[in-house]
Amino acid sequence: MDLNSDMGEGFGAWTLGDDAAMLQIVTSANIACGFHAGDPIGILQTLRTAAAQGVAVGAHVGYRDLAGFGRRPIDIPAPDLTADVIYQLGALAGLAQAAGTRVRYVKPHGALYNTIAEGGPQADAVIAAIRAYDPALPLMALAGAPIVALARAAGLTVICEAFADRAYTPEGRLLSRRLPGAVLHDPAQIAARMLHFAQHGTISAIDGTEVPIAAQSICVHGDSPDAVAMARTIRALFDQNAIPLQPATA
Amino acid sequence: MDLNSDMGEGFGAWTLGDDAAMLQIVTSANIACGFHAGDPIGILQTLRTAAAQGVAVGAHVGYRDLAGFGRRPIDIPAPDLTADVIYQLGALAGLAQAAGTRVRYVKPHGALYNTIAEGGPQADAVIAAIRAYDPALPLMALAGAPIVALARAAGLTVICEAFADRAYTPEGRLLSRRLPGAVLHDPAQIAARMLHFAQHGTISAIDGTEVPIAAQSICVHGDSPDAVAMARTIRALFDQNAIPLQPATA
Amino acid sequence: MDLNSDMGEGFGAWTLGDDAAMLQIVTSANIACGFHAGDPIGILQTLRTAAAQGVAVGAHVGYRDLAGFGRRPIDIPAPDLTADVIYQLGALAGLAQAAGTRVRYVKPHGALYNTIAEGGPQADAVIAAIRAYDPALPLMALAGAPIVALARAAGLTVICEAFADRAYTPEGRLLSRRLPGAVLHDPAQIAARMLHFAQHGTISAIDGTEVPIAAQSICVHGDSPDAVAMARTIRALFDQNAIPLQPATA
Amino acid sequence: MDLNSDMGEGFGAWTLGDDAAMLQIVTSANIACGFHAGDPIGILQTLRTAAAQGVAVGAHVGYRDLAGFGRRPIDIPAPDLTADVIYQLGALAGLAQAAGTRVRYVKPHGALYNTIAEGGPQADAVIAAIRAYDPALPLMALAGAPIVALARAAGLTVICEAFADRAYTPEGRLLSRRLPGAVLHDPAQIAARMLHFAQHGTISAIDGTEVPIAAQSICVHGDSPDAVAMARTIRALFDQNAIPLQPATA
Repeated sequence: MDLNSDMGEGFGAWTLGDDAAMLQIVTSANIACGFHAGDPIGILQTLRTAAAQGVAVGAHVGYRDLAGFGRRPIDIPAPDLTADVIYQLGALAGLAQAAGTRVRYVKPHGALYNTIAEGGPQADAVIAAIRAYDPALPLMALAGAPIVALARAAGLTVICEAFADRAYTPEGRLLSRRLPGAVLHDPAQIAARMLHFAQHGTISAIDGTEVPIAAQSICVHGDSPDAVAMARTIRALFDQNAIPLQPATA
Repeated sequence: MDLNSDMGEGFGAWTLGDDAAMLQIVTSANIACGFHAGDPIGILQTLRTAAAQGVAVGAHVGYRDLAGFGRRPIDIPAPDLTADVIYQLGALAGLAQAAGTRVRYVKPHGALYNTIAEGGPQADAVIAAIRAYDPALPLMALAGAPIVALARAAGLTVICEAFADRAYTPEGRLLSRRLPGAVLHDPAQIAARMLHFAQHGTISAIDGTEVPIAAQSICVHGDSPDAVAMARTIRALFDQNAIPLQPATA
Repeated sequence: MDLNSDMGEGFGAWTLGDDAAMLQIVTSANIACGFHAGDPIGILQTLRTAAAQGVAVGAHVGYRDLAGFGRRPIDIPAPDLTADVIYQLGALAGLAQAAGTRVRYVKPHGALYNTIAEGGPQADAVIAAIRAYDPALPLMALAGAPIVALARAAGLTVICEAFADRAYTPEGRLLSRRLPGAVLHDPAQIAARMLHFAQHGTISAIDGTEVPIAAQSICVHGDSPDAVAMARTIRALFDQNAIPLQPATA
Repeated sequence: MDLNSDMGEGFGAWTLGDDAAMLQIVTSANIACGFHAGDPIGILQTLRTAAAQGVAVGAHVGYRDLAGFGRRPIDIPAPDLTADVIYQLGALAGLAQAAGTRVRYVKPHGALYNTIAEGGPQADAVIAAIRAYDPALPLMALAGAPIVALARAAGLTVICEAFADRAYTPEGRLLSRRLPGAVLHDPAQIAARMLHFAQHGTISAIDGTEVPIAAQSICVHGDSPDAVAMARTIRALFDQNAIPLQPATA
């Protein structure tokens, strides 16, 4: 199983999250590429630490929206989005090369992640970007979402991920954040859920049914205050139970 | 001899210069990388045209300053500048890869070009960026300026360039723009000067002396209104005199 | 009747439209406020010319999106949008004060204009911004759209505008740009239409019916290549027919 | 005596400093205007808190440089800088108006503050901006620096400030940060120094001499981790000694 988290999300004088701590826990780091967050010097430092720790690096591509942190849906034309994604992939690859590592996967961020999960022109645009840049580069996407089949049909490798702190519907989809109980907060409960998932491939849905989730990676959020504690608790429980953690990518 | 010009300098709804026309004339295109100008979709289109025309592509890296078009000197710490340059190199390389071409050289833009010409921390920062990203990537720099020896001492390949429309001092340096006669405007005169330079390796300085200029490329400005006409006149005269034009890079 | 056009839409080294020419024709200038276009020095110059020509000045507020020129719908939370609009209103007012004029109305730009035309949270956010900043500041909005009644119900003065080069439905709404014939191109036809509108208050809809349009201003687009010619033709025809042109605002 | 501190320095998802805590201590708040830091919604919230607390508000104008937080000297042409400053003044004034307060003074930020302290074209540009926008608006500047006399000669009111945590030369200038002992760290010592200054108008210079400082305000830094503690210690000592604290502006 793979543990992934968002990183490199500072900008200039501003910091966000504790990359150094998180890089001692996770096996894959989704690194901001400068459009929703991340300035080159900060990205480079996070890449160097990731390289030193043997953490796999992914391109956390987003909308060009520093003020909105990439969380605002933007109705951008598909060709523009394709070019924006390629630009970010290249920029991170350049910094990764300088840091002695390389980009192993692509994980869209925030509103872009949510928008493309359901398919549509922006999903096609992101898939087109990866195909144009490097068709062998895997896409990390939401387990159970339409994007998974779309990307596979287009010839991409897809890494599916589950969300550690989110409730699931009986259909294996994330419960909407607008509904009560959508976000879990207790690290021990979250860790136990993820251990169960890693061992059995199922997560207990909101109605109590055990729903199979086809995921190779678990996402632990990087920018919430308790993110490091939650990730550490999961990691510790996995280690205790001898569940091996390693990047989902070769 | 190589003819180079600046391109990809639009942004969003804004255009600047006539890339399509210029790409039919020059042999090397210095393409903006998004920091002083250039948005990904516009850069990608220029890269595709350059690839189709067989024009060599260089990374026209600049300060992060869209409002100032990279023409304002910025006193940026060297490590930040190094990361900024690597980011831009990677971003352009990513788009070039998608366009079926590759980045063959680096030419800093505007105020960054002028600042590093004289050496100093920012020159070291740019050299460090290229070395960290790809030490085999040539730097295009001002013939006769201190940066040339500095970059070569650091192990970089340097392509030196002369400026078609600028007057020279007897020492082989550009005459300051603040002095009268610094910028030439007559396309026929400029073309004749450059033909003479291509044939003999010398340019007539402001005092009439013939000064040797060690340059493998001639820069024709891309953003002045008459840039295309000037470039076309030079190209025509070179063609008439059977002076072969080809990229300075392999 | 009032003639309005978009201006101040350059940024840094980039220019767009011919403000000086347009300011000799129109009676109201919608001036970009820096979020979708417009840098302070360019805005200031346009304001000074507007002041000298006696042209009324409006705040052309938009989404924070230079790369998309404010034409991409952005799903921004209402409180953020309210603050963004107030910021732009104040910024333009500051420059107007320095230029010896003042902001007389607010006209949202591009995707924001279209989004709020139909009402909804962003419409409420823009109305809230104007009320918080200066409830006496009129809103310029699309004649016939829901925003008009919403803004009036909230206590704002609304200036309604017709679009010179757009076809109308029999219901008095703009024909969608996706449908054939939505955009008119012949300056003489457009001018005749607008003269008829100024004289009779009706526009010939796409089906030939005469539809009443309750508008005090006519918008002539500022950024299309033929914008100045179209505006000039309208102005000339109005002058010939002694239709007085003056700002819609006091 | 006035206590001032920098605020409103977050941007989007990023926060910096503890504005709510600081606004309970200081009497004047230098609020970022969006160019080096500060997004409209964050600025508005800080303005509302300042208004509620009766804290005077100043415009903390800076270079357009989010990535560098306004700390990188930028060689911007004077007319551009003048327009940039007016834009920021207006933007903050607009938000202040919506928050029920008003801008009482201007304090340039970071590299702009340091650059204009010594006079020169950028100092002239800032002075010109204030004069064009509102000649009655005071400038807050470094006590003892050339800018003070320049601004006064231009007809501006100047509020001079001392820095609580900085060492002074016998000439009454700040000791360069590059020299040992330039920055003080002990809150008790700093508070005692400032109490002495408030009572006697002098500060003990690095060589032990008592140097008179003509300042009406004391700056306590807003973005260092210990800023709030330092400010609180100063405030407490002033309160104990019945030194009244109030804005320097009417």
